[in-house]
Amino acid sequence: MKTVYTFGPGIAHDDSRARDKAVVGGKGANLGEMARIGLPVPPGFTITTEECLHFLRDRHSQSARLDGEVRSALTHIERTVGKRFGDRHDPLLVSVRSGARVSMPGMMDTILNLGLNDQTVRGLAASSGDERFAWDSYRRFVQMYASVVLGIDHARFEDALEKAKEDRGVSQDVDLSATDLRDLIGEFFGIVEAERGAPFPQDVDEQLASAIAAVFESWESDRAKVYRRLNGIPGEWGTAVNVQAMVFGNLGETSATGVAFTRNPATGDKAYYGEWLVNAQGEDVVAGIRTPQYLTLAARTAAGAKLPSMEEALPAVFTELARLFELLELHYQDMQDIEFTVERGKLYILQTRSGKRTAKAALKIAVDMVEEGLIAEEAAIRRIDPASLDQLLHPTLDPDAPRTLLGSGLPASPGAASGAVVFDADTAAVRAELGENVILVRQETSPDDIHGMHVARGILTAKGGMTSHAAVVARGMGRPCVSGASSLSIDYQARSAEIGGVHIAEGDLITIDGSTGEIFQGALPTVMPELDREFATVMAWADRHRRMNVRTNAETPADCEVARQFGAEGIGLCRTEHMFFDGERINFMRQMILATNGTERLVALDRLLPEQRSDFVRIFEIMQGLPVTVRLLDPPLHEFLPHSESEFTELSAAVGIGVDQLRRRAEELAESNPMLGHRGCRLGVVYPEIYEMQVRAIFEAACAVSRETGQPVVPEIMIPLVGTARELDMLKQTVIGVSEAVFAEQGLTVEFTVGTMIELPRAALVADEIAAVGEFFSFGTNDLTQTTLGISRDDAGRFLGSYIDKGIYAKDPFVSIDVDGVGKLIEMAARLGRETRADIKLGICGEHGGDPASIAFCDRVGLDYVSASPFRVPIARLAAAQSALAAT
Amino acid sequence: MKTVYTFGPGIAHDDSRARDKAVVGGKGANLGEMARIGLPVPPGFTITTEECLHFLRDRHSQSARLDGEVRSALTHIERTVGKRFGDRHDPLLVSVRSGARVSMPGMMDTILNLGLNDQTVRGLAASSGDERFAWDSYRRFVQMYASVVLGIDHARFEDALEKAKEDRGVSQDVDLSATDLRDLIGEFFGIVEAERGAPFPQDVDEQLASAIAAVFESWESDRAKVYRRLNGIPGEWGTAVNVQAMVFGNLGETSATGVAFTRNPATGDKAYYGEWLVNAQGEDVVAGIRTPQYLTLAARTAAGAKLPSMEEALPAVFTELARLFELLELHYQDMQDIEFTVERGKLYILQTRSGKRTAKAALKIAVDMVEEGLIAEEAAIRRIDPASLDQLLHPTLDPDAPRTLLGSGLPASPGAASGAVVFDADTAAVRAELGENVILVRQETSPDDIHGMHVARGILTAKGGMTSHAAVVARGMGRPCVSGASSLSIDYQARSAEIGGVHIAEGDLITIDGSTGEIFQGALPTVMPELDREFATVMAWADRHRRMNVRTNAETPADCEVARQFGAEGIGLCRTEHMFFDGERINFMRQMILATNGTERLVALDRLLPEQRSDFVRIFEIMQGLPVTVRLLDPPLHEFLPHSESEFTELSAAVGIGVDQLRRRAEELAESNPMLGHRGCRLGVVYPEIYEMQVRAIFEAACAVSRETGQPVVPEIMIPLVGTARELDMLKQTVIGVSEAVFAEQGLTVEFTVGTMIELPRAALVADEIAAVGEFFSFGTNDLTQTTLGISRDDAGRFLGSYIDKGIYAKDPFVSIDVDGVGKLIEMAARLGRETRADIKLGICGEHGGDPASIAFCDRVGLDYVSASPFRVPIARLAAAQSALAAT
Repeated sequence: MKTVYTFGPGIAHDDSRARDKAVVGGKGANLGEMARIGLPVPPGFTITTEECLHFLRDRHSQSARLDGEVRSALTHIERTVGKRFGDRHDPLLVSVRSGARVSMPGMMDTILNLGLNDQTVRGLAASSGDERFAWDSYRRFVQMYASVVLGIDHARFEDALEKAKEDRGVSQDVDLSATDLRDLIGEFFGIVEAERGAPFPQDVDEQLASAIAAVFESWESDRAKVYRRLNGIPGEWGTAVNVQAMVFGNLGETSATGVAFTRNPATGDKAYYGEWLVNAQGEDVVAGIRTPQYLTLAARTAAGAKLPSMEEALPAVFTELARLFELLELHYQDMQDIEFTVERGKLYILQTRSGKRTAKAALKIAVDMVEEGLIAEEAAIRRIDPASLDQLLHPTLDPDAPRTLLGSGLPASPGAASGAVVFDADTAAVRAELGENVILVRQETSPDDIHGMHVARGILTAKGGMTSHAAVVARGMGRPCVSGASSLSIDYQARSAEIGGVHIAEGDLITIDGSTGEIFQGALPTVMPELDREFATVMAWADRHRRMNVRTNAETPADCEVARQFGAEGIGLCRTEHMFFDGERINFMRQMILATNGTERLVALDRLLPEQRSDFVRIFEIMQGLPVTVRLLDPPLHEFLPHSESEFTELSAAVGIGVDQLRRRAEELAESNPMLGHRGCRLGVVYPEIYEMQVRAIFEAACAVSRETGQPVVPEIMIPLVGTARELDMLKQTVIGVSEAVFAEQGLTVEFTVGTMIELPRAALVADEIAAVGEFFSFGTNDLTQTTLGISRDDAGRFLGSYIDKGIYAKDPFVSIDVDGVGKLIEMAARLGRETRADIKLGICGEHGGDPASIAFCDRVGLDYVSASPFRVPIARLAAAQSALAAT
Repeated sequence: MKTVYTFGPGIAHDDSRARDKAVVGGKGANLGEMARIGLPVPPGFTITTEECLHFLRDRHSQSARLDGEVRSALTHIERTVGKRFGDRHDPLLVSVRSGARVSMPGMMDTILNLGLNDQTVRGLAASSGDERFAWDSYRRFVQMYASVVLGIDHARFEDALEKAKEDRGVSQDVDLSATDLRDLIGEFFGIVEAERGAPFPQDVDEQLASAIAAVFESWESDRAKVYRRLNGIPGEWGTAVNVQAMVFGNLGETSATGVAFTRNPATGDKAYYGEWLVNAQGEDVVAGIRTPQYLTLAARTAAGAKLPSMEEALPAVFTELARLFELLELHYQDMQDIEFTVERGKLYILQTRSGKRTAKAALKIAVDMVEEGLIAEEAAIRRIDPASLDQLLHPTLDPDAPRTLLGSGLPASPGAASGAVVFDADTAAVRAELGENVILVRQETSPDDIHGMHVARGILTAKGGMTSHAAVVARGMGRPCVSGASSLSIDYQARSAEIGGVHIAEGDLITIDGSTGEIFQGALPTVMPELDREFATVMAWADRHRRMNVRTNAETPADCEVARQFGAEGIGLCRTEHMFFDGERINFMRQMILATNGTERLVALDRLLPEQRSDFVRIFEIMQGLPVTVRLLDPPLHEFLPHSESEFTELSAAVGIGVDQLRRRAEELAESNPMLGHRGCRLGVVYPEIYEMQVRAIFEAACAVSRETGQPVVPEIMIPLVGTARELDMLKQTVIGVSEAVFAEQGLTVEFTVGTMIELPRAALVADEIAAVGEFFSFGTNDLTQTTLGISRDDAGRFLGSYIDKGIYAKDPFVSIDVDGVGKLIEMAARLGRETRADIKLGICGEHGGDPASIAFCDRVGLDYVSASPFRVPIARLAAAQSALAAT
């Protein structure tokens, strides 16, 4: 079997091993493919992974044979490029790179410009006509080689380089002259000799053989081993080695370098797009010293630029490049991002890959390509990153508006918003009522602030992470939010704040960008999203291919409307408690909680009943005909009680109970771990009258809307935090009892189901028993993650960042389902549930319902629907379609 | 097939159906068995459960046949007793009772004295010579019959009875004369006629047939249905009906009634034991109006009582009774508790069952019976309730001491203790240091109080349940504790309290009994437990039969000593954090926590190191050669920070940091749900230097003790709150690194293992991965229960009682493992763990390690050991033996 595979123009191996990543590595396979389809890649060869393993087993036995094969592959390069390795006049230089089966970024080593020595560097200087370039190339090579191959600490050379710049009073590498660099190389040689007791190797063949050996050995470095352990990569894979001719775009006026896209990556328009520089290397573009030129005449003209486009300056090369663009799109069936170099009029393609693009461009390119007949609808769906749609769905800052940045925090909920700063929810409510746009600015938010968050255009907090209360609620509402802005300090007494040293009084205007986390002074203009033809087209395709339904988590009429516009097929989670914070209701709610006996409680509940009923009427009207899953009261009661002195005083006046007594009752209700406390169905078990009121409100509303519209109303009553079948059974009986009473009073019957959230590990473990009672399960993955992992979302900030950095969790488990842990419970519950009740309806209503990876997981385990916040509904539709396609 | 089975003296059916509880019910089978072995039971008959089901299916078709069989069975009774049913002169009376396959206490109905009517009541009066007795028997019959058979509300008759007493100015039923009762019966008849439109039935055959039908029907009552659903009893079982002759102990001087034990139930001595009353009914004993007489001459003499013993007064009957005692013990192979009645010189045994006994008696009886050759060792082990041993292991109140009860709370940790009241842990420490016995009295306790709890003789709290901090810690330490004493109110400022209205100043003496929950004034004398020969014998037997090892949860030298005396075979859980609360250490600990950088933290840790090391030295010395599982720091750091104003001031002086800054840091560390917060190995991951110090202390101590004693030291390092294999892996590397350093310094190597607690659902779910790293698992069932059920132990008080009352959980899941939920995770983790590492050591160290039902579960799933608090070690040894025997 071959151990070395050549690649380059005109080479297309019959051997399937040349295409096998297991044999030639990922990079080797890509280079081979580019050559095979006729791209002018700089020629080179790949030494197989098997050879790496042989080498690591026995470092001597293979070397002679390998040397022979390498030598003959090198001759292939020399012939193709027309230069010879080690030639004193116009030397062939090569790169030596590792290339394992999968990409291991930064984990392994690379050597560039190999083939330079004290003689060939002069040849390079002559042939390039640029002495400084030649010596700098040599300097880089010596530095890389000494570090990678000879194992000398990189810092020794960096220090010498720094010292050289200091001695010459310059700060940039580019300010060192050819002579400076030559002197520096002399110093480098001194370091090498002192460290190794031998001079730097001048024999280019020895350089190459040692570099190949060093890349093989890098597979066994500590760094690579750790990386493999973290990523589950077996040590037996080994790495391939790629040796490739160096090409230079700075060998005169017929040389150039550039980057091109086959279509416009910002807009998606079908037009070549790119930049190039004559007589330059890639790094010159990066350094930003010279202004890049446009690729096409059209683009140059549109921009009014003076420097000639490539189309004008190198028309033959441009024509060849354009031909390759077509070839590339036809082959890869996607918009490509290409790096190219022209060396003395000869075009080389260094790299091609699918180009990054904006969400807007992604949609347009996908739709165009389908219409061009280039790709199928399924491929178009697969190609769009669902998460990127978020960019399209929220208002964004007008990119042309001038701005003054005050500071920044975490991009907690996307979209941009401007408004007057307010420091509490009540003020937010009052000023919003007067028609003002407000930004609610808080240390952190609590459920007490919900009414303020609802009316605010955006939310800004000084504390809290991406999964803080503010962040979660804001995302749910689709309100832009910046959280954890550490440069923000608030003085609630003075009703003012400082952001990045700037004083902000209540009422001052600011703008926040929840997509970037930035905070700006004043009201910047924002641009509303335009959901164009391409968006609608892709969504329609997605709907055609997905198996799962997509619902929304919503409880306000406004959110319900938005969700329906975005294509929600029902409500998966309507949280009734949010309804209790609005306006006067909170006082009735507090009266209910403070009741010392059932009668007092009933009086307060009677006042809440019509309010709840009217909420449900509006929701049922909007969701006509679609299922609405209503979760009964869930949070611990003390969340509804006052916190501040003034709130206590106000409540005392409203309910006629002394402040001291109120405070005592609030203290009694306080819990050490409210997350695991008296909440969810435990409230329903101990205070059945609360759930009775809620269920009555639901059924009365359902009857009213059903009568009024003649359309079906489909309530699904969801009991939260169930851990045993018996809890659900008791509460289901309560629901049925109330339903019978209401239907008798109304002379009307409405179909409904009773089910539960699966949000405790125990519920998942006994899901077979629970399914005997519950007609549906909705996985409450927020709480299920908290309990399964034993991590409080509110407190996780202290260590979760560190946990993700250290690879303990690959992703934030509150953002993307922890498949190995939480996922295992969900799978078990789904299986057990179906064993008892084959047609049980299964869904998910945690934050994960809007996360594409989690949606794919839900699809794999066979859930019937996912439920996402309104603004994530399109994302969920697309992700569900992708997942369905992946399964076929 | 027979539908009616007679029983009584001389009847022993060949038919195995007569012994089958499924056919004749539990009570019917027992009565049959008693008769079969020759006991003089009042004769009667049982109608099968099948007949009940026939009846419920078709109420008419069967009645004629059944009537015939009943009639002939009744004749059997009449012949045996020598009275006739409905006889006007000396009527046979019968009881009619339900009797299902399993006991359903209070769920079904009973009718006594059936066979009375306006004629036979006069016959009963004549034959008994007690007119009041006759009319009262009739009154009771009418009342029961009207309620059970005729379905008239019981309250109607109770009201009439109350009114009759009021009218006659008396308060007790017994104060009503025969005439009063006759009048009352007249009123009862009026109620029956008004309600039913028909007179009370005077035909005794009709009475019997209707009573049997009513018992059948009671199987379908709502009450019975609910009971069945709660207890998983199938409706298809049906109930049998037992009809049995009434016998009366109050028919003159040759009649009597009594209760007897075949051995002394208090001491276990082999001596007949019991009480009797001549010419009396069972209820006379209960009413306490007459003083019962001793059964034996020896007992009467010992007590110096005047009234004759039964041995003297009714020698023939006594001889017969004594003969039956021997027969009973031989047959049932256990000490029996017997109810008997003598009717006109004829002895009837009404009931026999295994007698309740004290723990001391249980041990003595078991050992004696083995020595007598009556039972085998295995039977002796099986028979002793492990939980009852608790009575023997703690000091108890001297039963003879006079006492003044102040109030009571929950019996949170057994044992009695006296001492001076102190209201805070520091005062407790100071006064205990001076040699005073103190009782720590707190609103509730927190980890800050640990040092005070350690030095106190007992703990009393006003708040908190059986699983509050005080209760759990006190049980762990073996300190008596009364928690949640609602009549206790404390004024910390005034340093005084009130208990049940009595003022208690600091320093006043009180006594608490943690076994009963009682609080007494003054210092009552207590008696230390004597662990006698029988205790040692039974423990030795248990050790011979158990499979699992028994370890202890202990971290103080005193606890370790106690546990070894009680037979602990190692430490399963040594909680290092408890060591940080003692004396000055808390200040070093606080300095460590408040450190703003690694260096400051290291300085504080350096001061803690020698303290930790000396703790471990003492523990390793005591546990010589036995394994010691040390859990690294687990609780959230803020638990160590001050709470009160004065503590902050004190700390500020000690560490030289302003109070404000300290308070700010404490606030920063506060968590919403500390249970799910930054604790356990999450501390080790973020602050590795804390674990490094602890591990260094362990290994330095192990080396020192190993060198000093020449004995092996067996440390097992346990990493808490692991959720992923990677966390454990990282920390295991830390442990190994420190071990290598210490062993190199010490020139000595100590064998050790590294493992983890399985206390998060996720850990159980990925136990296969974790077992690749961890060498042992210890199930931390306290936290595993909290997370799996989503119930905070600290907050469960609000609803857990209600949950247990409603049958949602059969037992408190923090006391006895929730087998269906938590148990499923433990089983899964044990299986997955062994799949990866066949010899992984598995144990349990939650509170459940001392609960017999949980120990049986641990045995079933194959754990290697259980670990219990020191005082529960004997319980665990016995429970483990019982479980091993159950498996064979």
